[in-house]
Amino acid sequence: MQTSPRILVFDIFGTVVDWHGSIVREMAARHPQVDADAFALAWRAGYQPAMEVVRSGGRGFVKLDLLHREILDGILPRFGLGHLGEAERAVLNRIWHRLAAWPDSVAGLTRLKARFTSCSLSNGNLGLLTDMAKHAGLPWDCVLSAEVFRAYKPDPRVYLGAAEVFDADPAEVLMVASHHDDLAAARACGLQTAYIERPLEFGTAHLKDVSPRPGNTWHARDLLHLADLVGA
Amino acid sequence: MQTSPRILVFDIFGTVVDWHGSIVREMAARHPQVDADAFALAWRAGYQPAMEVVRSGGRGFVKLDLLHREILDGILPRFGLGHLGEAERAVLNRIWHRLAAWPDSVAGLTRLKARFTSCSLSNGNLGLLTDMAKHAGLPWDCVLSAEVFRAYKPDPRVYLGAAEVFDADPAEVLMVASHHDDLAAARACGLQTAYIERPLEFGTAHLKDVSPRPGNTWHARDLLHLADLVGA
Repeated sequence: MQTSPRILVFDIFGTVVDWHGSIVREMAARHPQVDADAFALAWRAGYQPAMEVVRSGGRGFVKLDLLHREILDGILPRFGLGHLGEAERAVLNRIWHRLAAWPDSVAGLTRLKARFTSCSLSNGNLGLLTDMAKHAGLPWDCVLSAEVFRAYKPDPRVYLGAAEVFDADPAEVLMVASHHDDLAAARACGLQTAYIERPLEFGTAHLKDVSPRPGNTWHARDLLHLADLVGA
Repeated sequence: MQTSPRILVFDIFGTVVDWHGSIVREMAARHPQVDADAFALAWRAGYQPAMEVVRSGGRGFVKLDLLHREILDGILPRFGLGHLGEAERAVLNRIWHRLAAWPDSVAGLTRLKARFTSCSLSNGNLGLLTDMAKHAGLPWDCVLSAEVFRAYKPDPRVYLGAAEVFDADPAEVLMVASHHDDLAAARACGLQTAYIERPLEFGTAHLKDVSPRPGNTWHARDLLHLADLVGA
């Protein structure tokens, strides 16, 4: 067992909030003729490629809000929504600011925060994460974002930057995420890692393999289980 | 009367927390032979000159923790404490992480946060502000700091950077502070401003002139009064 961490940093999309279910619900209400499951998956599918252009130096750092909007504009015609005007596109793009928390997230974070300094560490921009925290009641000690470090995970500057904010040795920081690539990058920087099972991240029609992998410090069903494991 | 702001950003040292009283109390407990009032004032007197070296380009951006430590090292011999070792110096320097809130701050911020997005906007670094918020129970929606913008107030990049985080027009942002120079710089960037009277900022022996000055959008006795004024 590792020594206890001092700082917990959390991936957000999929780990703390349910992006797929939230987008499906909003689309079903606003545009019921659209295949909301396919729409949510298409929007998210543009996420890594858009950030990769920034990571590879193909463009300077821009907020995730802008990347989300460019991806949205790209997929709307495919779903018969190419006619949507600016106002509705802006409303849709802000779905990411009001994603719903998983049922265990607020209670789990509240327990973890009582024992550890607990921060977001997301590729979402600060305004997005702040709106989300207010909307979903996420009790962060500090909202940290790729925007602070002008780099997108898994760029090492994000993980090492978070440790540096708290004058912490990387081994004192625990990265919590439901994605093995995020955790592998954090581990390569010396952070501890906790994998959170989120089998429904992509919806009930696309169950995710959440089996344990070697290398992670902890493997938890959800954030309440993580609180049990780390004694919070 | 201005239109209602959407985002409130708060100066911290003096405005939300009582740096003078907190330092005096800690010094009286740890080093009772020292004139704690003079010590607190001497430490704070080094604050603007140290940041001015950064603002003028004389050195790159460094965290306020480091500036506080350099000032501390400079004044210790003057107070007969030149013999203190590294461990005690480190403990003293972190007094700034555990400053006490003014009596109205938590209740006032809690009311303001219920209506507005409410963030710190301090020259203190992120780790300092996060520790302080945890210690004093300050309910920020987001911890913003000079560290995010790599510039110290009154550099315009800090005020305009805060507006940009929230995709806000500067006029939608209200800067709250107990220092007219901070507010004047915010106003020059187009922000609304609220002056908070803190007559005891420098201790009971050095009462501050807190009379109103023209130009500020609001003038409040404390954060509860500000909540009354803005309808929170």
